[in-house]
Amino acid sequence: MTQMPRIEFWFEFASTYSYPAAMRIESLAEAHGIRVDWRVFLLGPIFKDVGWNDSPFNLYPAKGRYMWRDMERECKALGIPFGRPSAFPRNGLPASRIACRNSDEPWMPKFVKSVYTANFARDLDIAATETIEECLAGCVDDPEKIILDAQSSRSKQALRVRTEEARDRGVFGAPTFFVGGEMYWGNDRLEMALSSVAGD
Amino acid sequence: MTQMPRIEFWFEFASTYSYPAAMRIESLAEAHGIRVDWRVFLLGPIFKDVGWNDSPFNLYPAKGRYMWRDMERECKALGIPFGRPSAFPRNGLPASRIACRNSDEPWMPKFVKSVYTANFARDLDIAATETIEECLAGCVDDPEKIILDAQSSRSKQALRVRTEEARDRGVFGAPTFFVGGEMYWGNDRLEMALSSVAGD
Repeated sequence: MTQMPRIEFWFEFASTYSYPAAMRIESLAEAHGIRVDWRVFLLGPIFKDVGWNDSPFNLYPAKGRYMWRDMERECKALGIPFGRPSAFPRNGLPASRIACRNSDEPWMPKFVKSVYTANFARDLDIAATETIEECLAGCVDDPEKIILDAQSSRSKQALRVRTEEARDRGVFGAPTFFVGGEMYWGNDRLEMALSSVAGD
Repeated sequence: MTQMPRIEFWFEFASTYSYPAAMRIESLAEAHGIRVDWRVFLLGPIFKDVGWNDSPFNLYPAKGRYMWRDMERECKALGIPFGRPSAFPRNGLPASRIACRNSDEPWMPKFVKSVYTANFARDLDIAATETIEECLAGCVDDPEKIILDAQSSRSKQALRVRTEEARDRGVFGAPTFFVGGEMYWGNDRLEMALSSVAGD
């Protein structure tokens, strides 16, 4: 038996460019015969290391203004619904704990895409329990149970460990992809990362 | 008579990703029937505005490490020779004054590409007079004259005005492309910028 080739997809719920990557990666990876490992993490602690207490898109307004316009164009070109959220960056902590705690569940990618859509297309507060419940409703029988479990100290610790791993591996932004030892940063690099797995 | 559509290409000699953009833009633009306006400027004063006294790739080492690897991969994929320069960022001021002062000369793009190749493929000091002379030698009959003229206060002022224009128009990095009112940032956006001119 040969093992299916894999791509690691490191994402953060508040990251704008992680949104189109999350919406695209499954079908693109499937077309290449590649399995996706979804790896949620937090950018906050990594940004703190370099002295940022906010998104660089807020700290550097010229870059931020450009990013919103670029997101609009990119999502349009990719056929992905997009609306600039009324709050940015939104608190992705509750959703991140759920996505981390349930890394291997088959419904996890669906939940992730549902949260991204809530943030970047529906302008919903993704930290609000009603949003999380709605995103989970299409995935699991008992959203309440998943939400409670994600608040356990074990769940919290799992996300901290995951974020440490990102930092240790040189992740400085999102989305980031790993294929073997190679790191690729940004939605723009998804195709190149997948091609490298496939040996194109 | 209809006017040929245009793309503005804003570049800075020390900017890594401006290098592949400079090497690619002429043939890509020609294929689209688009004229390129070459616009050299300095990133230093723009970076100073946001508190940076060095390249962000030096200030943020994790991002810098990734950039060098990414440049290597990108240039390989694009068939452009690349070697990591032993000094970064290099002082592009003398070359910038020449490229700014001679904006409308037909040899200017050739000079620009020659300077980029000196920096990012040949590991030469692009502030050294012998490098500038060699880059000019393939372009003009009298390199000395061009070099002297670029040191005039009028030449210096022209580059300052150009850099001010970049800042005023929201440029925060390089390469940056303008097509009509739309701004595109990064070598990765060159194709999209050209397609927007062509109305693809």
